[in-house]
Amino acid sequence: MTGVSIIGIGNMGAEIARIAAKGGSAVQLIVTAEGKGVDLANELQATVGVTGTTLTGDVVVLAVPYPAVEGILDTYADQLAGKTIVDITNPVDFSTFDALVVPADSSAAAQIAGRVPGAKVVKAFNTTFAATLATGSVGEAATTTVLVAGDDAAAKQQVIDLVQAGGLRAEDAGTLKRARELESLGFLQLGLAVGEKVAWTGGFAVTR
Amino acid sequence: MTGVSIIGIGNMGAEIARIAAKGGSAVQLIVTAEGKGVDLANELQATVGVTGTTLTGDVVVLAVPYPAVEGILDTYADQLAGKTIVDITNPVDFSTFDALVVPADSSAAAQIAGRVPGAKVVKAFNTTFAATLATGSVGEAATTTVLVAGDDAAAKQQVIDLVQAGGLRAEDAGTLKRARELESLGFLQLGLAVGEKVAWTGGFAVTR
Repeated sequence: MTGVSIIGIGNMGAEIARIAAKGGSAVQLIVTAEGKGVDLANELQATVGVTGTTLTGDVVVLAVPYPAVEGILDTYADQLAGKTIVDITNPVDFSTFDALVVPADSSAAAQIAGRVPGAKVVKAFNTTFAATLATGSVGEAATTTVLVAGDDAAAKQQVIDLVQAGGLRAEDAGTLKRARELESLGFLQLGLAVGEKVAWTGGFAVTR
Repeated sequence: MTGVSIIGIGNMGAEIARIAAKGGSAVQLIVTAEGKGVDLANELQATVGVTGTTLTGDVVVLAVPYPAVEGILDTYADQLAGKTIVDITNPVDFSTFDALVVPADSSAAAQIAGRVPGAKVVKAFNTTFAATLATGSVGEAATTTVLVAGDDAAAKQQVIDLVQAGGLRAEDAGTLKRARELESLGFLQLGLAVGEKVAWTGGFAVTR
């Protein structure tokens, strides 16, 4: 049984936790303060701990906004070596909504990999809105597909298996270098949703 | 009636010509040699001319691979001012399939706009495979949506109108700066198709 620690229980973190639990993983929720996440933990028969608690999962999902990632990596610097880190962020400059905040030839995932060289970083879930994870469909017809990119084949497969065990589709989108394109897609999709061109229950569906 | 000149009649150019003709535009096909494009011109009641012929359209579609764009812009340097140039390219490094060939903070569309400052450059059609333009659907269920980006609102609307008149959906994806993200999406989609993760009749569907 894979252990999955999910740091952050916003809309995305909660749905990823549900997917992991549905697929049979042992789920640990990491919250910012005592008393948070109790209902979700009960729902999923998950454990819950406050930021700084020892991570029990081999897979660690950073389900926080990109600006909060750095602090998390600092807090857990001595626990992340060897683990699979799942980066779900879209590092959009939300003040202008006109650019990503990472260098043009990089990605949030690449930045994280640079900071935690002992971990296996996988990009995933940044191209799927939370509602599409919850319902299993994008728009009315298409099955939700989680795109997954990473350099470590075993870590990437771990995340693909986790998604599929939870009832969704997953596709290997390539090496971690493709995180740049996944983040571009996520950025574009957020822009379309904010501009009301697509609904938060829709967006880009991967169709075969 | 809008005049549309389509330079290049490969899979993409031919389908864009059909969309323009269906929508009631006067279509001119620009081909590389005498005798080419005759069947398509007959099918669409379009005119046909060899590269170098005077462009009759207000809208000029560069339906050629990105490496061929530079030569086209040179050939037509004195005719493009004031026109709407539609860039449909995905400037992928096809030797490695691991990067785009334009600078990381730029796009094919931005490069073209830089070379032809008197023209109104619009990015469109690079996120839709030819088969999805032909059938009107992406995968089995989703209506084909052409994403359109550009800085000139009137030129962008011209392209949106052309697509909608041809029976497909179109969405405004933002300023020409968003061409970078559209090209990232196109690159990712090509990679998924080449890797047989999606079919050439599918790919990313925009769902509402």
